[in-house]
This record gives sequence, structure tokens and C-alpha cells, in this order.
Amino acid sequence: MRSLCCHYGSVNRSNPHPSDQSIVSGSDFLQLNIDDAPTGGRSDWLAQQLRLAISDHRLPVGSRLPATRVLAGELRVSRGVVTEAYQRLIEDGHAAGRGRNGTIVVAAPAAPPAVPRPAPGDSPLPPSALFAAAPGADIFDRMRAAPARIDLTPGVPDLAAFPRAAWLRAERSVLGALSAAGLGYADPRGTPELRHAIANWLARNRAIRVDPGEILIVAGTAQALSLLGHVLHDAGISTVAVEDPGSLGARQHLRNQRLDTPAVPVDSQGVRVDVLARTAVPAVLLTPAHQFPTGAVLSGARRRELMRWATENDGLIIEDDYDAEHRYDRPPVPALRSVLPDHVCYAGSVSKLLAPALRIGWVLAPPKYRDALVAAKRFADLGNAALPQQVLARFMESGQMERQLRHLRTRHRRRRDAMVDAIGTHLPDAVVHGAAAGLHLTITFDSEFADTDLAAAALARGVKVQPLSWHSQRPSRPGLVLGYAASTPTDISEGVATLGAALRRPS
Amino acid sequence: MRSLCCHYGSVNRSNPHPSDQSIVSGSDFLQLNIDDAPTGGRSDWLAQQLRLAISDHRLPVGSRLPATRVLAGELRVSRGVVTEAYQRLIEDGHAAGRGRNGTIVVAAPAAPPAVPRPAPGDSPLPPSALFAAAPGADIFDRMRAAPARIDLTPGVPDLAAFPRAAWLRAERSVLGALSAAGLGYADPRGTPELRHAIANWLARNRAIRVDPGEILIVAGTAQALSLLGHVLHDAGISTVAVEDPGSLGARQHLRNQRLDTPAVPVDSQGVRVDVLARTAVPAVLLTPAHQFPTGAVLSGARRRELMRWATENDGLIIEDDYDAEHRYDRPPVPALRSVLPDHVCYAGSVSKLLAPALRIGWVLAPPKYRDALVAAKRFADLGNAALPQQVLARFMESGQMERQLRHLRTRHRRRRDAMVDAIGTHLPDAVVHGAAAGLHLTITFDSEFADTDLAAAALARGVKVQPLSWHSQRPSRPGLVLGYAASTPTDISEGVATLGAALRRPS
Repeated sequence: MRSLCCHYGSVNRSNPHPSDQSIVSGSDFLQLNIDDAPTGGRSDWLAQQLRLAISDHRLPVGSRLPATRVLAGELRVSRGVVTEAYQRLIEDGHAAGRGRNGTIVVAAPAAPPAVPRPAPGDSPLPPSALFAAAPGADIFDRMRAAPARIDLTPGVPDLAAFPRAAWLRAERSVLGALSAAGLGYADPRGTPELRHAIANWLARNRAIRVDPGEILIVAGTAQALSLLGHVLHDAGISTVAVEDPGSLGARQHLRNQRLDTPAVPVDSQGVRVDVLARTAVPAVLLTPAHQFPTGAVLSGARRRELMRWATENDGLIIEDDYDAEHRYDRPPVPALRSVLPDHVCYAGSVSKLLAPALRIGWVLAPPKYRDALVAAKRFADLGNAALPQQVLARFMESGQMERQLRHLRTRHRRRRDAMVDAIGTHLPDAVVHGAAAGLHLTITFDSEFADTDLAAAALARGVKVQPLSWHSQRPSRPGLVLGYAASTPTDISEGVATLGAALRRPS
Repeated sequence: MRSLCCHYGSVNRSNPHPSDQSIVSGSDFLQLNIDDAPTGGRSDWLAQQLRLAISDHRLPVGSRLPATRVLAGELRVSRGVVTEAYQRLIEDGHAAGRGRNGTIVVAAPAAPPAVPRPAPGDSPLPPSALFAAAPGADIFDRMRAAPARIDLTPGVPDLAAFPRAAWLRAERSVLGALSAAGLGYADPRGTPELRHAIANWLARNRAIRVDPGEILIVAGTAQALSLLGHVLHDAGISTVAVEDPGSLGARQHLRNQRLDTPAVPVDSQGVRVDVLARTAVPAVLLTPAHQFPTGAVLSGARRRELMRWATENDGLIIEDDYDAEHRYDRPPVPALRSVLPDHVCYAGSVSKLLAPALRIGWVLAPPKYRDALVAAKRFADLGNAALPQQVLARFMESGQMERQLRHLRTRHRRRRDAMVDAIGTHLPDAVVHGAAAGLHLTITFDSEFADTDLAAAALARGVKVQPLSWHSQRPSRPGLVLGYAASTPTDISEGVATLGAALRRPS
């Protein structure tokens, strides 16, 4: 190994964060390992190491870089490599040539401390505190930050099954084919290729007939709800009924847009349309294919009632089709949008098909809200990023998406079975709901206790679950919402066993 | 080539959109080219072809798929390939096995028409109409849709120089290293890796010292302005002064958040701080490093006045640092944020460094607005997509970003020079502003005419430019804002020659 300890007269000894992977700074020296440099890119490498040293004050402003001849000799590289590296620093404005005085660090950069300032998402609350109060807007950030051995929170598919190789192949192919203009500012509705692919996907999988021009690409269902909430508010709609129980997150998004969210109860046939009709609200948010969190499927009779409600009252149905593609023991349920295009605002995403981290979803709005939604998207962020849209379009059009869904279905079914078995063993008094489809199931208990206490006791034992009461606006039976898709059968069994232990000895 | 014409009794003859790349449907047949199928993936391919045929009604609901034996024989593949393909359709819910009756198409998907419905961005206005009225919210969509031979609109770097291979390499490395949890829901502030890389980038290039925990990743400066506008409105601030001339797009974003945007004039030293002080506004949006569109650099005296204004009035400066890294003939200008962290909300992005289509930017807010901004981002979209953030982080930390900037600077300088030369030749009466840095320059004319007419005349001749008056709230000298970074020197010369011709003979 050829290495170098460079001594500088003016090294800042007070810098509390001197470490770096490539340059180790002790009290007064820098250590460069030229062996770390890629062959053919040594000047780049050296310039970058020096930039890092400038960033974190190992090379303070005003200090002189070693003479090129000296550094080249000690690193055993040609002098041109060092001269070129210094030239790049000068071009970047990090250094200046001072003739006989050599090359001087002139920029005034500063080192970001190695340890970030704690913020809500960074500082985990103790389990009791996390579940003690009503869940605030940042509850899901706090949940994510809470340390746990086994994570059974719902809403995530098997992320280990994400098709990384196929995604990279599709990306290579997109990068090879994309025009330069495709990297510029674009149509805020999304790329034509992805809108076309989604129209075909929805036709094949959700029985929806839609023109690609009517599809708006968004950053997931969360953004769909935010944009729509904004548009509805501008249109004079200040109330959107929600299912009870129903997604806490969705309710929070609507409320942030200053919308009231009165509760409409859900039973085994789905939302109680008779109650909805009596509340005289102009709009309702529904999960008809697989109600969150109960898993109920909207029955045929209720669908007909709902269609009557929408047409007679000019009512708006926001259809959150969040995991309709995942089903195990029952036939597919067509989307409401397929029969009521003028009254349904349909929202879907790849969060449950591929990964939430992709932040890609779509909205099909009734004609009267369509232009306002596009304008809202334009003002929000000028449209989704282009590359991931193009990659997803290839993914969908090539049949990869159906292949992925088939692959997930097998894995998810096994995990679902493991969870149902474990519940039978460790939580024999729990009633299981909604296990025929989706990524989670819900259990309820007939006894009286606070499910937040149970969730806190589980978290104290290293198992993360959501209490059912978080998703209920009115008093409900205690219960838990348990995601199985993202955990291995072994973790699921152990997690449910831990829940059983927590239930028997809560503290 | 082995191909097959399958005849079906029930093919829908009324389908008006029968064409597809892989299956050619004539009046009553489908044509499958098994040679198009990848070796080893024939079942997938066949299933996908049949799905496409179901999507667009070439295989209508109720029709029977050919017997597996027959289809296998005609395609000269093993019967297992066909059986497997049918099985996949059955699993997807597109088909059902009917015992002796064979396999029947059961889903009811629909074909999206091949030609999308025209929408604002799709239907170009004639040049005269485009420039005749005051620019609406969708003016940049309409500009993009307007056909032109040469596009000199500002705001885009040399997109042909986007480092596709390096980006793909970084993506491969990210996909290889990312944990499964990294594909789930995440911190709405952005990934720790990117926030760390940006802190280092800002330290090296903008003399900004910031803790990564204080950085919020957003979908570009457009989203930064939208989120900040929302937060300011909630904090009781309903007015944000803007530079005049100043970016029309930025003004539109603030106004959409119900903020007033009074104009403060700009001269050769940058914004007139004396006028700002007299307007008694609580906040101002500035482009201090390279004023848009004039290119003025905020002078030292004005900087000191501005710092006094901010500290004495508890004023907020929104610093849009949109293209500060691109400079040719002058030293770098440190960001205002580097000296006034408590009074500056700093926004930057990769739109001018790599590509607008990436939709990645960052905001550094003063402490009192930081939590509200994170909440606004959470409600907007739950945070940026993870993969592009991680790729960008690698890109920045490896020195690729500095390399790209150096590469761009060489190319952009040549283009800038070509434009200045062409203006000297073809528009000798024009005064050039702001050519020492950035991606565009501005020209003004001392004569009296409507610059919108000139822009319309140029567009009618196939050259797209922005009239200076779009970016002015008060009457101003006529002028044009001309982007040079995204066009070749040849196109630039031809484009400017066309402007000269349009100026001499406007109609």
C-alpha cells in the first residue's frame, strides 16, 4: 500500500469530526491511500479527497496545498495527476493559484456535523408514550422510528421481493432510449408512455376503461388525496365522509386540507350506504374492494345502493383501490370506477404492488374535476419525475408487473396462512377479519380493554402493531391491524406469540 | 418465422383500434409471432400477448381460447408453454377453466383508445394566440407543446450531457446495497444519505454550513415554493415581495398559495433593498447569485443592506439559488444562507445541474418554519421517492457531480459565446445582460415595441423564446430571455439569425 501522511501547518485542531473513509485525519495529518483510486481516474479521485478534506476543515481556508512535485513524489503518481487535481479545485472555486506561493484553499466551506440534530422521526418515544395520546400527524413517522425486532404494521408488500434486477434492466433500456427532451420539464399529467401502460393495466386488472389522457400520475395515494382535497375545497366541498373504521392516514390527509370527515359505519358487507345517505354529505372516501382495515368487500346490494346514492345526489365517491390486486381465496372485484366514471374519483398506486418508496400513483377524476386536479399537480411539483415513470411503463407493458404480482401472491398467501395459524394458536379468543385478500388482517377481541395498551405492551416486547382504535372515530371493540406481507413466516409466528404473551401479561 | 393466424368465431369486428406491435389483428384473426418471444420466457410472452388482446377486445369476454393442443401445434411450442400461459390468465382473473368447454375469457377489460383526448398541454395554440393574452397558469405547458425547430426557452441545462452511464452505474450500486426496509415508507425529510451528501455539496460549493437533519428534500424548487407558501400563509404571512423583473413561474406558485407578490425593482446591483424596506413586507423572494432574468449579481453593498433589513425587521429572505453553480467569467458568490441562517429559507435543486425531470431539490428553512415545512411535505406526498435520492447521493459523494458540472461548464461556455457572437451579428441593437454566468442571457432593446409580438413572430418562424415582459409586473423595455445551454452552437446561431429577421419584418 502506498500511502501518504501530509503535514500542514494550519490544520484546524478544533475540528470535532475529522474522520472519513478515505482520508484519516489525526491530530495534524491527512492520510491518502492512492490504492483506493480507480485506475485512469486518479486526478478525479485526488480532487474529490481534497474536496472532502476542505468540507470538513481538515484543509482549512488559507492553508496551502503541498507542492505538486512533493505530493506526486510521495503518492508515487505522475505530477500531471496532482496538477490536474489542483486545477479542478481551482475551477470549482475551492482553491486559487498564488504563483510562487503555491495553491491556497480559498472557499469557506464548513463541515456538517457527523450526527444529525434529532427530529421527530429520529427520536423514538417509549412505547407507552407512543400509544398514550391521540395519534398526531407525525404518528407514522414516530412508529417507523420506534425500535422493534418484528414489524407487523400494515400497508407494505414483501419488499424483499422487489424485482431489483428487472427494474435495473428496464432502467437501462429507458436510459438508452430516452430523448434529451425527455429529461426536461414535462407534461404535469405524467409521461404518455406511463399513462398508456396504466390504462392497459387498469383495463386488464380492474375492468376500467379509460383514455390515457384522463389519467393523472401522482406521487402516491397520499398526494392524490391532498390534491383532491384542495380541489374539492376550492369547489365548495368542505366535507368528505369516511369509513369507520377507516384509514387514519387518509383521514389525516383530508383534514389537513380543512375538510370535515364524518364517520359512516362499516359492517361485513362494507360501508352502510343507508347511513351515508342520511348524513347528506356531498362526497365519501371508500375502499370498496378490500375495506381498510376490516377487509370487508362491498356487497352487490351495497354497490347498487351506492350507485343510486351517487346518481340521485350527484355524490362523489373517492375510490381508494389500495390493494385490490392482492387476493387469495376470492374472485376479483371490479372497481366502482368501471361502472360509475362520472361519479368516482379513482386512486391507485404501486405502493402495494412494488414498493411505497417509488411514490408513484394515479388518479382518474370525473370530468368536472379533471382540469383543476392537473393544475393542482402542476402547482404542487410540476409533475412526477420522468425516469421512474418510464421504467414503470416498461415494467407494466412487458408483463413484468403481472409476473411480480403472481410471485407476490404466492409469498403473501404463505405468510397470511402463517399468521392465521399463529393467531389460532396464540390468540385463540381473537376474531380474524379480512384474510381473503390484501396485505394485512384485522383481529378483534370480545373482551373490554384498551388496544393501545396491548400495542404498547407488544412494542415493549419488540413487536410493532397498530391498534384498531387508531382507525376508528367512534368507540369500537379492541383490536389490532396486523400486516403479514412484509414479514417472514418465522417472524410472523414469533410476533403473534409475543402478542399472546403481551395480552396475557400486559405490563 | 413461425407465425399463426388464429380464427375465432366471436372476435369483435367493431373494435376500431385493432393494431399492436406484436399481434396484428385483421378482420377476424390474431397473428402471433413466437419468434418475438424471449427464449425461456415463452409462457410469459404468450400470456402477455393474450392479455393485450383481451385489453383491446380482440379477445372479447365470453370467447374461447384455442385448445392448448391446437395452439401449441400451430406455434410449434410444447403444450406446457400454452397450458402455463392459460394458467396465468386464470390466476389473473382474465380467464376461467370450463372443463370440457375449454378456457373462456371472463374479465371485462376495455381498450383505451389509441389516440388520447387532447388536453391543454397537447393542443398547441397558434403563436399569435400563445403570446396575445396575459400568460395563464398553464403557459409553460402550452409553450412546451408549441412546435418549434429551435427551442431557446431558458431554464434547462444541456440535457444531451446527462451522464446516463454513470447514473445507471450508481443505480446498480444502490439497488445492490439498499435494504428491503429502504423500499418502504420513509422519513418525509428525505434519506439520510442524500441529506448528508447535500450538506457536503453545499459546504463545498455554496459555503453553507448546515446539519443534514435541517435539510428537507423536495420535488424541485416549485414544490419548495408551494410548501413554503402554504406554511407562510398558516403563519399569518400573506405577502412575499418578488424581484421585478423576476421569474413568472415562481410568482405563479406563490400566488397559487394565496400570497400577494408586490414587485421590487432590480438594477445592475441586484434588488433595490431601499425600495424593499419602504414596502414593509415581511418576506421577499430573491435570486441573489444570478438574478432571473437579468443575470445581475447582488452587490456587496446591497448584501449588507439586505442583512440589515432582515435582522432589523425580522424579515424572511427566500433564496432561490437556481443556477449559482454555472459561472464562466466571475468568481463564485457565496449564498446568502451562509451568512444569515436564521433569516434565509434557501432552495436549490438538480434541475440546472443534471435534469429537471429528476424533480429533486432541497430546502434549508430557518428554525421557526422547519417543523411546519416537514409536516407540509409529509401531507403533500409523504416524501420524495427513495431510489433516485440514493442514486443522487452516490453521484454527489463520488465526485461525479463536480465532474458533470465541469463538463457542463465547458459546453455551456461555448454555447454562451456562440449566442453572444450571433447577437452581435444579427441583433446589433440589442443590449446583452447577465452573460457571465447561468444558462441563459437576457437582451433588451431601446426602441418601443411589444416583445410578445417579437416572440410570436419568432415562433411562427420556428424559434421558441420567452418575452421579457412575461417576467415583468410593471412596464419595461422590450426584451427576450434566451436560453443557450440546451441548444447546439449551430442551432443558436440559426435561432438568433431568425430573431433578427423577425425583428426586421415582424409579420
